[in-house]
Amino acid sequence: MGLDSFSKSKRSDEISNAVINRLPKYYRCLRELLNNDILRVSSKELAGLMRTTASQIRQDFNCFGGFGQQGYGYSVKTLYTKIGMILGITDNYSAVIIGAGGIGMILADNPVFTKRGVILRGVFDKLKKYIGKEINSELTVRSIKDLEQFLLTTKIDIAVFVDYELTKSCVDILLRNKIKGIWNFTGHELRDVDDTIPIENMYIEDTLMTLCYQIKQKEE
Amino acid sequence: MGLDSFSKSKRSDEISNAVINRLPKYYRCLRELLNNDILRVSSKELAGLMRTTASQIRQDFNCFGGFGQQGYGYSVKTLYTKIGMILGITDNYSAVIIGAGGIGMILADNPVFTKRGVILRGVFDKLKKYIGKEINSELTVRSIKDLEQFLLTTKIDIAVFVDYELTKSCVDILLRNKIKGIWNFTGHELRDVDDTIPIENMYIEDTLMTLCYQIKQKEE
Repeated sequence: MGLDSFSKSKRSDEISNAVINRLPKYYRCLRELLNNDILRVSSKELAGLMRTTASQIRQDFNCFGGFGQQGYGYSVKTLYTKIGMILGITDNYSAVIIGAGGIGMILADNPVFTKRGVILRGVFDKLKKYIGKEINSELTVRSIKDLEQFLLTTKIDIAVFVDYELTKSCVDILLRNKIKGIWNFTGHELRDVDDTIPIENMYIEDTLMTLCYQIKQKEE
Repeated sequence: MGLDSFSKSKRSDEISNAVINRLPKYYRCLRELLNNDILRVSSKELAGLMRTTASQIRQDFNCFGGFGQQGYGYSVKTLYTKIGMILGITDNYSAVIIGAGGIGMILADNPVFTKRGVILRGVFDKLKKYIGKEINSELTVRSIKDLEQFLLTTKIDIAVFVDYELTKSCVDILLRNKIKGIWNFTGHELRDVDDTIPIENMYIEDTLMTLCYQIKQKEE
């Protein structure tokens, strides 16, 4: 199967969430290989890094039309680029953060956005102690009161919700302005958002609970 | 099926990860109900909150021996307590955070630990600007050099890794001192940890990538 068979891939709605959720992990592993100047990788080697099986990897890649040639392994750079394209990393979506406290400022000042091709356009809060605070040379925290005006002139794709009270007060404004996706760090379910908008919920406490559960199982 | 049938539940190693991963979400939904003084809930009502089906909920709870009585719905408080017990929330595990920068300080000063019954015992870093910094009335950031000494007198169950370089320098010390689980925020795979120790990896950038993927799918 050649590298150009990408177009022959399954329709995306046939691809399971489990495969989709593994793609970012592939992407990270491949970046690690590139950083170490490793240019070709077999499914067996990749399986070792991913802590999975070579057959799983071949199966996953086949969902997207396969990326490799039997016996030659995969080109790390091609794989990295193609998976990045599938993940929409080259699409330069724009984002705002709602809530400068807690993880808000940490996210704003973190390479996570630029590394993933997302352009952070603004950070909003209602508290005086945050408004005007400089995040980097290009961004300062703005007043939430200016959000609606801001959205008239700036197209925003992704709302990153950090502060729950603030989110409740401005989620309608963002929806009216046709945001395309929500990254939710508030720790609360967002019930008033219709099902057509993709939401990724980051419930960090859930993973702590899952960890405690696993520890408990080991002890029993 | 009565409330006491808990002991008749399946053995935990038969329960799928998908069910386990839903338990924290049940736990959050039930807390929300308790906060609103709602004491009984049907599987249908719970399904609405969880954005799933009543049959899914009955199936999940059956894995643990079921918690309800046909036609009467579930006691919210009993469910909340039992799911908390299953998740190990009543076990009071102790934790240290390795890395006070970035999300380290945010986590340390966050109710996530106490809310989940985990006792934060220490925060460690190597940088002077963090060492000695007060987190709350009971905790200040300690020097990473003191970690080994600290572990001689304090039993630690969970290591929360925030700073990757720091993690590499002290993971062996923690493993020697028999930590039971790892909560990994470094954004790097921890390859030198054997498979017997449960690890929960928080790759926040993965969820951003998954979100971008979903947005892209909607656009096509």
